[in-house]
Order: sequence, then structure tokens, then C-alpha cells
Amino acid sequence: MAMLVVGSVAQDTIHNHLGTHDHIIGGAAVFCALSGSTFGPVQLVGVVGRDFPQSAMDLLKDKGVDLEGLEIVDGKTFHWEGRYSDDLASRETIRTDLNVFADFRPKIPASYRNTEYLMLANIDPELQLEVLDQVDRPKLVVADTMNLWIDIRLEKLKELLGRIDVLTINEEEARQLSGEHNVVVAAKALHSLGPKTVIIKRGEYGALLFDGGRTFSAPALPLDDVKDPTGCGDTFAGGFIGHLANTPGEGFEHLKNAVIYGSAIASFCVQGIGINNVKDLSRDAVNDRVRTFHELVRFEAN
Amino acid sequence: MAMLVVGSVAQDTIHNHLGTHDHIIGGAAVFCALSGSTFGPVQLVGVVGRDFPQSAMDLLKDKGVDLEGLEIVDGKTFHWEGRYSDDLASRETIRTDLNVFADFRPKIPASYRNTEYLMLANIDPELQLEVLDQVDRPKLVVADTMNLWIDIRLEKLKELLGRIDVLTINEEEARQLSGEHNVVVAAKALHSLGPKTVIIKRGEYGALLFDGGRTFSAPALPLDDVKDPTGCGDTFAGGFIGHLANTPGEGFEHLKNAVIYGSAIASFCVQGIGINNVKDLSRDAVNDRVRTFHELVRFEAN
Repeated sequence: MAMLVVGSVAQDTIHNHLGTHDHIIGGAAVFCALSGSTFGPVQLVGVVGRDFPQSAMDLLKDKGVDLEGLEIVDGKTFHWEGRYSDDLASRETIRTDLNVFADFRPKIPASYRNTEYLMLANIDPELQLEVLDQVDRPKLVVADTMNLWIDIRLEKLKELLGRIDVLTINEEEARQLSGEHNVVVAAKALHSLGPKTVIIKRGEYGALLFDGGRTFSAPALPLDDVKDPTGCGDTFAGGFIGHLANTPGEGFEHLKNAVIYGSAIASFCVQGIGINNVKDLSRDAVNDRVRTFHELVRFEAN
Repeated sequence: MAMLVVGSVAQDTIHNHLGTHDHIIGGAAVFCALSGSTFGPVQLVGVVGRDFPQSAMDLLKDKGVDLEGLEIVDGKTFHWEGRYSDDLASRETIRTDLNVFADFRPKIPASYRNTEYLMLANIDPELQLEVLDQVDRPKLVVADTMNLWIDIRLEKLKELLGRIDVLTINEEEARQLSGEHNVVVAAKALHSLGPKTVIIKRGEYGALLFDGGRTFSAPALPLDDVKDPTGCGDTFAGGFIGHLANTPGEGFEHLKNAVIYGSAIASFCVQGIGINNVKDLSRDAVNDRVRTFHELVRFEAN
């Protein structure tokens, strides 16, 4: 079943321990879409400028990403430039050129409006709300956000939280949004704002899934060849919703599996620069990695 | 089978979000011993002053901790005073009164010298080496350390690493000792210094077990009633070695189970002030919690 992702399509310039990677393809919606396409068709809504390479659009189409919703307008594509510390533990933004993204208002094509799985990747919650106003109520709405919107769009973000099913959020942002340091207490506070399911992303420490009073702890795969964390959280979310949209099952067990599939794709993502290690990912490779995750945490209870 | 633990016996004064806890029983060897006693007999080597309460010694004896190796000398017991931040994420030492611990040289009673499971809790590596010189080669030697010894006793610490089987170490200390930020690379570097098994403790993020090229990721239990992290790493190590000493099994699966049992007891420890929540811990309660850990990470691989 198709999933719809709305979010940023970008070119990133990344400086890290491996060098400078100039104007490579990025953006939350691209990472989400590539990840979700592992499991089935994806519809993408976003905006790019005339400079966005045709090769990137061809790549997305080849992966089964429908680009009817990708506007191409005069101007330059959203560009983010940042520098990671050598240990990849922190990063600083050098510049953010919104370009054509500055005036972006998502327009959902008629053919997308009854899509049942909707991923609201990290953009202004006001735009995320505009998307919800344009679609029939999907079966599942997942939203991501970031510290910027907690700082400057808190009321709109809270309005959004009342209208979504699943919130994916970084641990630090969960603390900021809830005002609670303890992650369990923070998750409860986030539940009370609306989403039935809260997923707290902890980077190299994995993810916690909170749903209906139950908790699942997903590991991250310890890797010795970490290259670039950019987009990993987006591949996590895209894999999560893509798996749910295309795999039979229900309830907490189904959510747990989706978290593991998202984690598996994120583990590939961090092993390459930008989208490099997720753009040719096969379902078989992902399944193999899920088995590695299973083995990583498996033990026999007494 | 008995395990022998050598380390600090202390009184701690802890200031945290719940108040001030003045001269409560603490010390790495005490936390290790109480935790290990869940599984079988424990022998303890350490030193206290005449002020150390008889009630604390009675408690340890009641739990099956042999105190023949606990010296009682004129003077005051080692005292540590510290303050935790309200979120328990950091702590500062206010004062360290070594007192009788300043002149401590471990003396292993003759009846302990052929004990097969030895826990070298966190003390000066020079003293840890003195213990090894006094015992027949145990079947398993586990050692813990801390940043202080990496700073001021690096050569002795490296000598120790060449003579132990298992190193338990905090993530930050693993980075400091190895000079590597990446946790997998750090573990490899630590292996190369001697220990076949490296366990990296990550606090609320669980623990990683590295052994023979294999990796196991143990979760921490997400808790909404965290009270005091003091001693949790020591209860982890004590539970780990106590489980190994008293449970049939071998190889990586056996190590994995021991890590989970150590994690389970540590999860109880953090729910109480000082030793409060581990001093009356039953084996049944620990087994129940291990099942909770199992459920926390269990998922069906495809």
C-alpha cells in the first residue's frame, strides 16, 4: 500500500572527517521516501528548484517514488551546509539557504488524498497541519519535528500533536517539548498531548517505543564504520511507516517490527555519506540486517 | 560457588533531588557483594574504621557475605560526599575523605586464595595487582576501573589489563582509555590490552558485551522512578560475576545471561537510595525482572 511523505527535498554540503561533500542529495522527505520504498510505493510532496539534478529524480522514480507531488519551481533548491565534529557526536550549521523552500505550501495532488499512511517529515508544523487539511483522514499519521519548531511554533506543534497517531522525536527534543528529563515521564507527557504512539530516537543508543502502556527497546547496531548520521532519523521514520503500510499485522508486535525495520535501514544509512548507502538497498539486505538486530539482543530468559 | 570481591567499603553522603542522605552505607565492594549474594556466597576484602555500623556488617553476613577479609582498624571509614543534578544526569564530588582507606593494602585470607571467581572492584590498579599476586589463578577475573586511574596510574592499569579476563568500564572511560570515540573501535583497542571480554556500561542506555568477535546489546529498563545511580555499575558487575559463579553454562550465551542478570539488579539499585533497594532483593524478584528485560527487547525476526 502506498505511503505519502511530505517534507524537505534538499541539497546538503557536509563537512566531516572524510572530507567535504558538496551539494549532495538530501532532505528529510528524500531519506524517508528512499527508506519507505524498500517496502512498497511512495508518494512524495515537496519542492525543488530548477537546479535539482534530473539524476536524483530518476533515482527516486526507479525506487518506486511517485513524483507527481514534487513541485519544480524557478530558483534554487533548499541547501543546508554543516560541519560534523570528527567523532560525529555533534554538528554545527554553517548556513541554511531556504531558497524555494521559503515559500513552500504543500499541495497534495488529488490522487494522493486518500492515501492511508502519511509521513509528515520535519517541516514547520503549520505546513504539516495544512497537509492534514488536504487529505482524507489517513489510517495512520506519523510526524517528526525538531527543536526549532518547539522554540518558535509551539502552539502550532501542539495543535498538530492532537491530530497525529505517532510522534517520532529525538531524546533531547522529547525532553525539551515535555519539560521532563526522565524519558519515561517525557513519553507520558507527550502521549497526553495527543499521539497514541511515541517513539524516542536515541541515535547510537537505539530507540524506545511507547504505546498503550507498553515499552519496547530497540537497539542500535554497534558499527565500526560510521560515516554520516545525516538523514538517519528520517530513514528510521520512513522505514517504520513503510513497513507498517506494506506488511500484514497489527497491534504492538506490528509496531515493534516496524521499529526494528526502521532501525535496520538507519544502520545502513549511517554507513554511507548522505543517501549513498540507502539508495540501492535491497529488501534482502534489510531482512539480513533485521536478523543481525535479532541476534544482537537475543537471550534466553530463565 | 563463592566469589571474592575486593574494593572499597564506604559511607556516602549523597545530596539529590530527594534530599540529603547522610553517611549511608556504600562503596563498590558493598554494592558488588550484595548483588553477587543473590546467586551464592560472597567473600569480601576491604577495610573500615571503628565507626562502621555493626548493623551494616550484620546485613552483609545475613546475605551470605563472609567478612573474614574485612579489616576493622582504628580511624574512620572511607567517606564520599557528592551532589547529583536534579535530573541525575551528572554529579559533583564535594569531598573525599580516604580515612582508613588511605593506607589500605588488601590482605587475602588463606581460605579465600583458591576462590575461582574474583571481582576486582574499582580501586587503585596497584592494589588490584597486589590481590592477583596473593591468589591462585582464578577461573575468572573481572575488573572495574575509573577515570582517576586512567589519569594517574595508566601504566599499572595496563599491567592489570594483561592479567584479567573481563573489563567492565563506563563508555566515557572506555573512550578515554582507548583513545577511540567509536565504541566498537574502543572495545577492540581494549581487547588488545588484554581482556578477552569487554563490557561497556552505558548507564540508562544499557551495556554492550564484546567477546570473541561477537557483540551483545543489553538494554536498560526505562524507569519512571529513578532515585539514585550510586553503585549501579557495581551491582551490575557483582550480579554479572555472581551469576557466572553460580549458574551452569558456558560461552557467549552464558556471558549474555550474566550481563542481563547484572542489568536487572542494577535496575533495582537505581530505584532506591544507596543500597536500599538491593539489600533485601530476592532471587524471585530478580528472575521476574529478567523476564521484564526479555519482554522489553523481544521481537520476531522475519
